[in-house]
Amino acid sequence: MTETDAPPHPFDAAVALTPAADGRTRSRTRPEYANMVGPFGGVTAATLVQAVQQHPDRLGDPLSITVNYAAPVADGDFDIAARVVRSNRTNQHWTLELTQDGAVTTTATAVFGIHRDTWADTEIAMPSAPPPDAVPVQGFPDFVAWARNYEMRFVRGAVPDQDAGEHPDSTTTLWVRDNPARPLDFPALTSLCDVFYPRVFLRRGQYMPAGTVSLTVYFHADAGELAAQGEDYVLGTARTHRFSRGYFDQTAHMWGRDGTLLASTHQLVYFKG
Amino acid sequence: MTETDAPPHPFDAAVALTPAADGRTRSRTRPEYANMVGPFGGVTAATLVQAVQQHPDRLGDPLSITVNYAAPVADGDFDIAARVVRSNRTNQHWTLELTQDGAVTTTATAVFGIHRDTWADTEIAMPSAPPPDAVPVQGFPDFVAWARNYEMRFVRGAVPDQDAGEHPDSTTTLWVRDNPARPLDFPALTSLCDVFYPRVFLRRGQYMPAGTVSLTVYFHADAGELAAQGEDYVLGTARTHRFSRGYFDQTAHMWGRDGTLLASTHQLVYFKG
Repeated sequence: MTETDAPPHPFDAAVALTPAADGRTRSRTRPEYANMVGPFGGVTAATLVQAVQQHPDRLGDPLSITVNYAAPVADGDFDIAARVVRSNRTNQHWTLELTQDGAVTTTATAVFGIHRDTWADTEIAMPSAPPPDAVPVQGFPDFVAWARNYEMRFVRGAVPDQDAGEHPDSTTTLWVRDNPARPLDFPALTSLCDVFYPRVFLRRGQYMPAGTVSLTVYFHADAGELAAQGEDYVLGTARTHRFSRGYFDQTAHMWGRDGTLLASTHQLVYFKG
Repeated sequence: MTETDAPPHPFDAAVALTPAADGRTRSRTRPEYANMVGPFGGVTAATLVQAVQQHPDRLGDPLSITVNYAAPVADGDFDIAARVVRSNRTNQHWTLELTQDGAVTTTATAVFGIHRDTWADTEIAMPSAPPPDAVPVQGFPDFVAWARNYEMRFVRGAVPDQDAGEHPDSTTTLWVRDNPARPLDFPALTSLCDVFYPRVFLRRGQYMPAGTVSLTVYFHADAGELAAQGEDYVLGTARTHRFSRGYFDQTAHMWGRDGTLLASTHQLVYFKG
């Protein structure tokens, strides 16, 4: 088998799109990225980014995306409708809908745009962490299929054991990359932004029903900065500000090993317990 | 003039909606809330929240909203189309479009839902600040009309003078409330989430073209917690994580004087300079 005959990376297979009716594109859930109910939300978000990335009208790099998980995506085919709402000189606004048999499961809005040279500064500090090789690989419980596609090395706040008890804070910091390794691009970074397990599990030291309701990613890096990461690890750090009455938020930052802040990402999560 | 004949609070006038064709609602920009170009983005976001709040199909309290500012809203009338994408047992997903003469200027998605009693904790600390009465009132330059509708008492990071020079960090912390004072509700809190001037002005010590591209609010407080704030001040604190190549992000937290974390809010801002 020559190299060009090699099967695609599981992530590329998961975000692959084919043309469908009415200008839509079609994709299909993959068992490799299954979550408890439906597919891993990170891959759904990545597929939406991919739908704009490969759209002929796309302008520039992704700047932001918000994905709303309205209903579980069932195993099987789904369609994505991506519509340009407005193209300005340097940025472009999109709305997206993911449907199955005509029913909307997921909505999104995205902003793409052109980068320009300006004054620049990263104001927050990268968390201090030992190099990835010095941190043991430690994953999720085996029944979480999607997590097996990520090599995770927890610096702080690993998945708690069932009898872990309460934890004083919700911070998880980990080195993470695709497994097998794969060059970083916008869809892959989008998916990594959702790689953190629900913060309430860490605080409470137990599992309970929980799921992302809405996810936002701000892409700080341009395509060149992402390409410069190659297949290297990303350092992700996530925490919650407030848990209250069935919902909590999460803010995370994704750092390149070279100290580049690649993305800031926020989500609202429901929980029961 | 009896009390019931009193003119409405300027904020209530600004977010007022009347029925329009095709199930839309209509509103109108107000000179009191004008920004440099078009209306203050906070009031636009608040009007979108209001459109769902008073929709007959609305379920529960706002949990999150993302507003994308695709084009300036011109002075005059505008229409809002609010569509329920999906109603689940405890939450409800909305998409919204603000149009003028059929052209979309603003898109949004929102999640509303029912609160339930659960384990709860606020993990971050409220910034320490002197009481509002001990902090002088200090506004924006007079040409920013909308800012005159807010009483601002800057604890840290006030609007820089034109010759201020560079500032080492982007943090602004202020006590703020409507002027004249008005009971806090979800639209008013939404608007307060956008009350921070562009962080790049503070860092660079100068004004330059800048504007919000996308704004997200996570509402941590339920209706009861908001009502308990009455007309009291809110302590807002905002900062940027990274400025790069024409864009920066902003994360802010809005605290009740009683220590309740009312909202976490994030935005992506373009700038030129």
